[in-house]
Amino acid sequence: MRLDIITLFPDFFEAPLQIGLLGKALQQGIAQVNCINPRDFATDKHRRVDDEPYGGGVGMVLKPEPFFAAVGSLPRWDPYEIILLTPQGQPLNQEVLRELAQKAQLILICGQYEGFDERIRQNLATREISLGDFVLTGGEIPALALINGVVRLLPGTVGKVDSLKSESFESGLLEYPQYTRPPEFQGHRVPDVLLSGDHQAIARWRQQQQLIRTWQRRPDLLAKRSLTPQEQHLLETGLAGERTDAVDVEEPTDAQKPSI
Amino acid sequence: MRLDIITLFPDFFEAPLQIGLLGKALQQGIAQVNCINPRDFATDKHRRVDDEPYGGGVGMVLKPEPFFAAVGSLPRWDPYEIILLTPQGQPLNQEVLRELAQKAQLILICGQYEGFDERIRQNLATREISLGDFVLTGGEIPALALINGVVRLLPGTVGKVDSLKSESFESGLLEYPQYTRPPEFQGHRVPDVLLSGDHQAIARWRQQQQLIRTWQRRPDLLAKRSLTPQEQHLLETGLAGERTDAVDVEEPTDAQKPSI
Repeated sequence: MRLDIITLFPDFFEAPLQIGLLGKALQQGIAQVNCINPRDFATDKHRRVDDEPYGGGVGMVLKPEPFFAAVGSLPRWDPYEIILLTPQGQPLNQEVLRELAQKAQLILICGQYEGFDERIRQNLATREISLGDFVLTGGEIPALALINGVVRLLPGTVGKVDSLKSESFESGLLEYPQYTRPPEFQGHRVPDVLLSGDHQAIARWRQQQQLIRTWQRRPDLLAKRSLTPQEQHLLETGLAGERTDAVDVEEPTDAQKPSI
Repeated sequence: MRLDIITLFPDFFEAPLQIGLLGKALQQGIAQVNCINPRDFATDKHRRVDDEPYGGGVGMVLKPEPFFAAVGSLPRWDPYEIILLTPQGQPLNQEVLRELAQKAQLILICGQYEGFDERIRQNLATREISLGDFVLTGGEIPALALINGVVRLLPGTVGKVDSLKSESFESGLLEYPQYTRPPEFQGHRVPDVLLSGDHQAIARWRQQQQLIRTWQRRPDLLAKRSLTPQEQHLLETGLAGERTDAVDVEEPTDAQKPSI
């Protein structure tokens, strides 16, 4: 996969693309990343990339010419997407990442200041993606998140396929609690079942914990997913157990709660 | 504000914290950032920070000791939060950022590998935050997004308070289209109203565009927010105008559409 980043701050990406699992994947050639600066494509003597908004208002707007020229300078690998990172786009989620991981090339356009001239949005980008319902100073962090999330789905990045399959969102549930050594830390013990060696009991406990945790924290995820009778039973008995144990369980309000 | 990042990859943050508006704000001392590595707090001779999961499974789990010791080594500025960045947390949004911007100190714990020992989650963190419903290779990018989003809300980071107020999500609507020079680019013209100098007409057009855009792209945002009679009228006449103009409008499906 080829990844092109159109950014006014190419230095931003240097360390983040060298570090951790993503860095290893890129060093192995699983994907190649190329940064270009739209300022290098500005044609006036001051290399201006922004200008005042028509109609008035505070802040500066990114001009169309340097961005069209920067994208126009790139080779194209089919199938590709030209992605504008903006709070106005489609919210990023695991499904979008899986879809983008199928492409041969992603061209990512990072904004700054008050945003892009609308013609970049309408006539250059093939899609717009938002990192979430919050505002950052620019598109560099969203571009980095997208690259990280896509590259880790490419074959070879994450060691074992199992590791992708069993994780958050792939099953529509949050992950189960994980424990490692020591068996007791500051008075808090690892649950007995995990030390039991009984693989069936461990699998059942983990599934139950996933259901309880998702129900408690993200009832919206559970509402999107129908439970099998076995899952319903596990969730109901799990919740009954937690109530008896008087663990400090915060329950969702009635309005948030899916029927189980 | 004091920001402490507990990370196995402190180098990751170097350039991103020096660049753009965020870099300027940190240079001005609007907030101070400190990175510490839990590996420096590991006590065994191999400086291990992870170990195999109890109960079996692929991947490694982050051990409690180095993370408790790293957080324990920090001074505390009240009020503070100790935040675990994990897909299991509360989804980040603008409201969460505004709340966190009120704190004196944020301690951000970044994960890697298969996640944290549950005792870090339950007995060390005061809250858990998720960047969104997708999986990344670690918590560094989410920590960076959180820092960027919080620091830009602190007084002094963004030049004009107006610039914060008029932006996405603060009004519950997406932003209106922005245009700058040239007035015509590759045959695409700036809308006449923006060149008219009629400030009242410009304000009305912008408000209408915000309503249309939010209705078309994010009906979920509009469903959360009641429209005034004036806004309803603007939206209805705006949509009627777009239909007549046969602009390529993608309408939400009936199921997504809030009633207007």
